[in-house]
Amino acid sequence: MNDAEMDTPVPVIDLDIVMANLRRMQDYCDLHGLKLRPHIKTHKMPDLALEQVRLGAVGITCQKLGEAEVMVDAGLTDILMSYPVIGAAKAARLGALARRATMRVAVDNPVALRTVADAASQAGREIGILVEFDSGRLRTGVTTVDEALALARAVVATDGVRFDGLMTYPSSAATAPFIAAAKEAFAAAGIEIGMVSGGGTPDVWSKHETVGLTELRVGTYIFHDRATVGNGVATLDDCALHVHATVVSRPTPDRAVIDTGSKSLSSDLVAPSVGKGFGMIREYPDAVIERVNEEHGMVDLSACAARPEIGERVRVLPNHVCVVVNLHDTVVRTRGGEIDGDGTGVWPVAARGRSR
Amino acid sequence: MNDAEMDTPVPVIDLDIVMANLRRMQDYCDLHGLKLRPHIKTHKMPDLALEQVRLGAVGITCQKLGEAEVMVDAGLTDILMSYPVIGAAKAARLGALARRATMRVAVDNPVALRTVADAASQAGREIGILVEFDSGRLRTGVTTVDEALALARAVVATDGVRFDGLMTYPSSAATAPFIAAAKEAFAAAGIEIGMVSGGGTPDVWSKHETVGLTELRVGTYIFHDRATVGNGVATLDDCALHVHATVVSRPTPDRAVIDTGSKSLSSDLVAPSVGKGFGMIREYPDAVIERVNEEHGMVDLSACAARPEIGERVRVLPNHVCVVVNLHDTVVRTRGGEIDGDGTGVWPVAARGRSR
Repeated sequence: MNDAEMDTPVPVIDLDIVMANLRRMQDYCDLHGLKLRPHIKTHKMPDLALEQVRLGAVGITCQKLGEAEVMVDAGLTDILMSYPVIGAAKAARLGALARRATMRVAVDNPVALRTVADAASQAGREIGILVEFDSGRLRTGVTTVDEALALARAVVATDGVRFDGLMTYPSSAATAPFIAAAKEAFAAAGIEIGMVSGGGTPDVWSKHETVGLTELRVGTYIFHDRATVGNGVATLDDCALHVHATVVSRPTPDRAVIDTGSKSLSSDLVAPSVGKGFGMIREYPDAVIERVNEEHGMVDLSACAARPEIGERVRVLPNHVCVVVNLHDTVVRTRGGEIDGDGTGVWPVAARGRSR
Repeated sequence: MNDAEMDTPVPVIDLDIVMANLRRMQDYCDLHGLKLRPHIKTHKMPDLALEQVRLGAVGITCQKLGEAEVMVDAGLTDILMSYPVIGAAKAARLGALARRATMRVAVDNPVALRTVADAASQAGREIGILVEFDSGRLRTGVTTVDEALALARAVVATDGVRFDGLMTYPSSAATAPFIAAAKEAFAAAGIEIGMVSGGGTPDVWSKHETVGLTELRVGTYIFHDRATVGNGVATLDDCALHVHATVVSRPTPDRAVIDTGSKSLSSDLVAPSVGKGFGMIREYPDAVIERVNEEHGMVDLSACAARPEIGERVRVLPNHVCVVVNLHDTVVRTRGGEIDGDGTGVWPVAARGRSR
């Protein structure tokens, strides 16, 4: 690989590390009897989703229908929509997907249930439903077992849909007690909870301790990032994606400017306990990307013994890799230290920007 | 326009407001004898750049060569690169552009100058150079008049390039004193400062008070956003772009979840004095988008008298519109309250993601 041929800023993915990360997670799930359903929102590349399934994943997770459309086009056949699908336009799209793949959808309210039922009706295919509950993140999900049961009853009473079980994100200390209480209440109501889907890379290696979980949804583990390293579930050696950048200015001895800003690294931060700034420069770990503008990264070098020259290339470990991938139409991929693929190494991020 | 036909999340641009914003800025520049060179990093759409030129702009500003390539392909002929261009790959691309359009490039160091000179040599065309100085933002730009003069001398001594003047961003209270001191020092050295380019929408209506400024670079004014409204240079009625979103969950009375997160709104915040959260919901101005995940916007409704239902559409005014546009492959545009264009209203963001 000739770094100098890849113009910056460019995300570069080490496929050897990717494969090791994928195998490690599949092995973990196999060891503990958990089904693995990787979340493709991190990589958004169909061939990597197919690789995850080839290694043993039961299917994939998508956040948005636009992602699922790209994945089904590429041959993925079993998809969980872990996100509320609402409204007539989305019902039509979900129905079209249900004619081509096994679809499940998480719902936390009756309007979402109605949308899925409309999709099933249009498709003439049954669609599985998971009731989403909140394990403390305070985003989507019903907050009580009573609400979960009421929604499950509504699912059972609705034509064209099938109640498959429960879903939460992330699974946490609050998850097992909810599952236990739900099992009791649902059993009394004569409703079987066939599966319980949890997830989240940040504390993934203890997920098997959550009693009742049957399936794991994780995304970030394919690449890892500064946040997951900071959380202790990965090491710097497990990080498969770096944004290669060039030092474009050295206005003062203590300041460098690199050609990655919020349009290529995002503005996402990490917890103060993990580190400062908008990414970690691997060659200068004591440097701090203290501010980003759209295309500028302002780097404080005051703690650095060695300092970069103008024109020097550096590798930035992103704070949050999922939003970084989503900024780039293409990535460069390497294998065995050489550019992978057709010689250019350039791969499209096929589901980039599919937020609808 | 039938809102329900535009699936969410989707950026929707009101072209009537755009045109009023473009005319107001051109009128301002005309009134004060400033040349207007709009920055296209905000909209990234060639037809809007052509409209800016049609209304009187002397040319456009691009941050990255990838943007300039899209704009020159579309017929733009006069471009200022307001960003350091560094390295052999970029020299080749700049050279190719210089054969097709009038190019100027800002530099703040000798390595950048060398790159531009290489490009000029490859193109067989002279390329204009502005020396960038820092007016207090502490990103790129030389920090003293002595450095500016040394670099200008180097430009004058370099074949293929032409010293055109100075550039800074944003122009501020520190700008006029720097210009005055530079004029004296450069005159003593026999170097003419032909133009001085400043800019920045956040305080744009006082830019004419900066003695010595000849040209204005502004981007955000085309759409405006929560930040520029907060800065007092625009009103809510001047805001031309909103991200239309759907309420997808109402887990508790005080919480709504909308289908826009950091992948469609970005994680950019505004100053605390301007407001809280990740955007402003126009229909519920007392609601706070207190957290975003990638596709979730968590809305605190506790201060709201009226509250939205699941399935309801809302319009989110972005905190920072430039990074929002860069997240979306397409936007919907309206004119006279009706969908513009071919009936779908869908327009590509042609230079989206062109960070290289």
